[in-house]
Amino acid sequence: MIDITLPDGTVKKFESGITSLDVAKSISEGFARNVISANFNNITIETSTPLTTNGSLILYTWNNPEGKKAFWHSSAHVLAQAIEDIYPNAKLSIGPAIENGFYYDVDFGDQSISDKDFKAIETKMIEIARGKHDFKMRSVTKQDALSLYKSQNNDYKVELIENLEDGTITFCDHSTFTDLCRGGHIPNTSIIKAVKILSVAGAYWRGDENNKQLTRIYGISFPKQKELTEYLNLLEEAKKRDHRKLGKELELFTFSQKVGQGLPLWLPKGAALRERLENFLKKAQKKAGYEMVVTPHIGQKELYVTSGHYAKYGEDSFQPIHTPKADEEFLLKPMNCPHHCEVYNAKPFSYKELPKRYAEFGTVYRYEQSGELHGLTRVRGFTQDDAHIFCTPDQLDQEFKSVIDLVLYVFGSLGFENFTAQVSLRDPENPDKYIGDNALWEKAEQAIINAAKDKNLNYVIETGEAAFYGPKLDFMVKDALGRQWQLGTIQVDYTLPERFDLTYKGSDNELHRPVMIHRAPFGSMERFIAILLEHTGGNFPLWLMPEQVIILSLSEKYEKYAEKVLNLLENHEIRALVDNRNETIGKKIREAEMNKIPYMIIIGENEEKENMISVRQHGGEDLGMISVDAFSKIVDDEIKKTLKTF
Amino acid sequence: MIDITLPDGTVKKFESGITSLDVAKSISEGFARNVISANFNNITIETSTPLTTNGSLILYTWNNPEGKKAFWHSSAHVLAQAIEDIYPNAKLSIGPAIENGFYYDVDFGDQSISDKDFKAIETKMIEIARGKHDFKMRSVTKQDALSLYKSQNNDYKVELIENLEDGTITFCDHSTFTDLCRGGHIPNTSIIKAVKILSVAGAYWRGDENNKQLTRIYGISFPKQKELTEYLNLLEEAKKRDHRKLGKELELFTFSQKVGQGLPLWLPKGAALRERLENFLKKAQKKAGYEMVVTPHIGQKELYVTSGHYAKYGEDSFQPIHTPKADEEFLLKPMNCPHHCEVYNAKPFSYKELPKRYAEFGTVYRYEQSGELHGLTRVRGFTQDDAHIFCTPDQLDQEFKSVIDLVLYVFGSLGFENFTAQVSLRDPENPDKYIGDNALWEKAEQAIINAAKDKNLNYVIETGEAAFYGPKLDFMVKDALGRQWQLGTIQVDYTLPERFDLTYKGSDNELHRPVMIHRAPFGSMERFIAILLEHTGGNFPLWLMPEQVIILSLSEKYEKYAEKVLNLLENHEIRALVDNRNETIGKKIREAEMNKIPYMIIIGENEEKENMISVRQHGGEDLGMISVDAFSKIVDDEIKKTLKTF
Repeated sequence: MIDITLPDGTVKKFESGITSLDVAKSISEGFARNVISANFNNITIETSTPLTTNGSLILYTWNNPEGKKAFWHSSAHVLAQAIEDIYPNAKLSIGPAIENGFYYDVDFGDQSISDKDFKAIETKMIEIARGKHDFKMRSVTKQDALSLYKSQNNDYKVELIENLEDGTITFCDHSTFTDLCRGGHIPNTSIIKAVKILSVAGAYWRGDENNKQLTRIYGISFPKQKELTEYLNLLEEAKKRDHRKLGKELELFTFSQKVGQGLPLWLPKGAALRERLENFLKKAQKKAGYEMVVTPHIGQKELYVTSGHYAKYGEDSFQPIHTPKADEEFLLKPMNCPHHCEVYNAKPFSYKELPKRYAEFGTVYRYEQSGELHGLTRVRGFTQDDAHIFCTPDQLDQEFKSVIDLVLYVFGSLGFENFTAQVSLRDPENPDKYIGDNALWEKAEQAIINAAKDKNLNYVIETGEAAFYGPKLDFMVKDALGRQWQLGTIQVDYTLPERFDLTYKGSDNELHRPVMIHRAPFGSMERFIAILLEHTGGNFPLWLMPEQVIILSLSEKYEKYAEKVLNLLENHEIRALVDNRNETIGKKIREAEMNKIPYMIIIGENEEKENMISVRQHGGEDLGMISVDAFSKIVDDEIKKTLKTF
Repeated sequence: MIDITLPDGTVKKFESGITSLDVAKSISEGFARNVISANFNNITIETSTPLTTNGSLILYTWNNPEGKKAFWHSSAHVLAQAIEDIYPNAKLSIGPAIENGFYYDVDFGDQSISDKDFKAIETKMIEIARGKHDFKMRSVTKQDALSLYKSQNNDYKVELIENLEDGTITFCDHSTFTDLCRGGHIPNTSIIKAVKILSVAGAYWRGDENNKQLTRIYGISFPKQKELTEYLNLLEEAKKRDHRKLGKELELFTFSQKVGQGLPLWLPKGAALRERLENFLKKAQKKAGYEMVVTPHIGQKELYVTSGHYAKYGEDSFQPIHTPKADEEFLLKPMNCPHHCEVYNAKPFSYKELPKRYAEFGTVYRYEQSGELHGLTRVRGFTQDDAHIFCTPDQLDQEFKSVIDLVLYVFGSLGFENFTAQVSLRDPENPDKYIGDNALWEKAEQAIINAAKDKNLNYVIETGEAAFYGPKLDFMVKDALGRQWQLGTIQVDYTLPERFDLTYKGSDNELHRPVMIHRAPFGSMERFIAILLEHTGGNFPLWLMPEQVIILSLSEKYEKYAEKVLNLLENHEIRALVDNRNETIGKKIREAEMNKIPYMIIIGENEEKENMISVRQHGGEDLGMISVDAFSKIVDDEIKKTLKTF
């Protein structure tokens, strides 16, 4: 008999040799039907592997990431078999599961594979899957393994086997197909109900461009046809919402080869969008007692040696800026904090004057490898909605909570309703990674956890994810497509006040160290706008739209009336523009729809005569002929729905 | 007989040997009494020098800069004689006239000179001046010159004489004093009626720190006592208005040794002031059809090679920023124009869409030697209120005029009423200094002159002062102390559109080059705020004051009522703050005065009972007890006096 410990802590006794699938059945037949993968004593195993020692067992279904991994790994075997069937001369190399699906790298010789071939591969895969073939692992000797692939003239597999450290070499068989494999499969092929080949791409053997280029076939599979359909819809929608595509269509930003990669240029509409977001945050920050400051984008190298940033960013980042004077060196600022410490240092403070909350839309520069750059989400220059709060240790709890309030207000006003918080603490096993006193770290970590609890945040604790200078709380939002993004951050810092010798005079007339909080609700303007674009597909909350209304005149005759309506709307502080071009009304409406302008006002003879406007909403709804005042009320009401008072 | 040509072109005949003073007398006795210096054939001469050839004569009075120079040069001789009288062991070195007054560098041996000694020197100088001693030049041989100073053990003068190229060596005698001198004096000492020794400082002999340090005595003198008094008052006022002093007192900005010289950090009140100025300009620019853009603070080196800025700023400025990738080089941007050209290049334009007017508060970085840095007027990083207009050649005239309108609106709203314009054209003798086609330059120069005429500007034309890429119009303002500053600039540029290959599609369906206008009404935020501080002494126009009103409660009892008044004022969009501190009302008023807050509202029992406020203006005027509404009206009216609608 062996003792099997389940994730909930219960220990069950079984006869040695029992499989995980049988353990699952002992829990419930229904559950067992959904189990597709297992982990025993921290090692992924087959569900059919006999268990012969005491140990901890985790059973996975499709709903676990590990379950999906086994599912897609197994699907890669099926893909490989389908390819072997259809292309007898193809040579397989490697085929792993990835974040969304799987791929297989194949040497097709002289043949080339295009999307025209996908259907046949999918059909063959489904045919194999329906055969309900079990996945079975078996050990082979290195010699047997080599002789199999040498007989097939498959140099790739031969090379893989030759490079394997001596030990157990395993094959996985299903149906008539065998592959070199470490294991981790679903019980049998019939669980795979839906398959889609997504794309082909070139991939060098072993990622080395000196090697031969193989064909990488990407696919995805699901246990239900409906899930595949949903996934493909999501993929289609994500493509439409790609912020790089929308940024171009809406003329928000551009990149210039001459200016340099990863350095966005904000076009008028994008700059107006940024400014609106900045003004929104400025207004809330003013109410929350923040003061704006302005600091330069460079500083002497010594400044960052003092702050510790040079040690962190120096080598891999933008290099020092020399001047005609030999001993002078400046750096592009990778963070605003050292400058704000020097702002704090400009005059002495008493405890009565704290907290000081310095805010700045501070543009910082950090070098990223060109391969890592991606639209606005990974750039080399970005503007943080940064602020640093300098307070007494007693004020830390309250300040941290106030920052959370501000962040929640920001998310609410921008339609991010689905978010979680991540509390990042030190890795207790790597104390050398962090700078600062142990007792201070403990106090700061506790303050964050208290605030998260107090504000009823849905939070997880991640050990080892803290910044090098202090613990932090990050907000992760889910966008409309269910994708997770990291947004705002709040970080406690006991280190910089020490390094910059920041002080305040306490009630005891002695000098004390303030505590510092770094925070940025948006994170960066660039990244935030990218995520907002993908979340809303460009249909921002009405208060944020660069253009809320477009006035379309039926002909040039109504130009004067169009201007009159424009003035009335401007008096109501509604942002509108006029399209008086000599084009058909149909074309004007199509363009306004493409530009995602929320309201179209159409004016012609009737409207002018009645002193009214005809209103059409983005997406098609017709609000009929109404007065400008009535329309303004509609706009006001819609704005108030999202933009609350802070 | 000789022909003497006067500045107005008239030619008069005189006997050879006549002096300039006699020529002056031939014009008018009254005029001759005021003549104190002369220039003959472009050489400064004594008024007593006999004229023996035909030539052009200019006669100078105190009102000419050249007259002042002769006056102060002669005063330096009197200073030297006074020093020799009082300090017989002192050794004189050099003593020139400067922009405001004169100095003499003296080796006092073991003695030290302080402000306690100034009175005695001044008294002695006036005593000498009253002696009405003529200044008389005479030639001496090098040997005689050397032997005089060797006999006095004066190594400085000996060194000066030894370094003189062989030729005429001249001495100037007056009273019992003789000095090595090239000439250019007033007729006699009695014209000097008022003298002030201003300061002493250390100065190395010949400016070389390896040499001995001498004592530099600074003085100034005038032909009337009243002028000295006025000058000293001005000096006192300028000291009070020094923007560095006011910036510190008003907590507007600071510098940090760690961040680096010439890199200002804007403190909350200064950042708010900047933002208010920016918003003011943004609003006017929006009405004028500008669109804001945002561009990075760096660009690839190639960008500036293309623009020509690398050739201009490269060697003497901040050096290229390298990255971990070998062939990548970036530069801090010294100007925003290359980035705006790339914004323009982001999409194709038709002539119907022009002009495009891109504006940005763009922070640029230019290296200045540390010795040249001065407060906010000479810095290494500054924010230009920059914009670039891209238009067709036909639109140039109108665009240039519109920019002048905007600049005049800005000056008017900020109380700069006394200004002139300078039109800077090419130096026709140095065509190589400029890039671009000759015909284009001519057209641009004419457009500027036309616009200046059309807008009735008080302008001067300066040949040879154009930027390397185009002609320009600069505005020079006189501040409240009569000092002249260069502010806003408008520049035409035909060159960058060429270098960046900018195009638009004309009505002929062909591609054409747009013209570019650079413009910045403020010039830079840093410099403008410095000048505004010195112009207003910190008493900005009311609309611009960071804090317009301070509410001073007579005791903590009235805290609630103070908050109520604050809310009422905020509803009227008046920027107010409350001083509820437990301090005497006298102290609170004094601090509010020092902070230059325009209005103080004092509230106590009476005010609360009557639901009124007592108002006191900065500077002391008492407006009595009035309602908040009545007070808001006063504030509104005062704002409207300066801040007009654009």
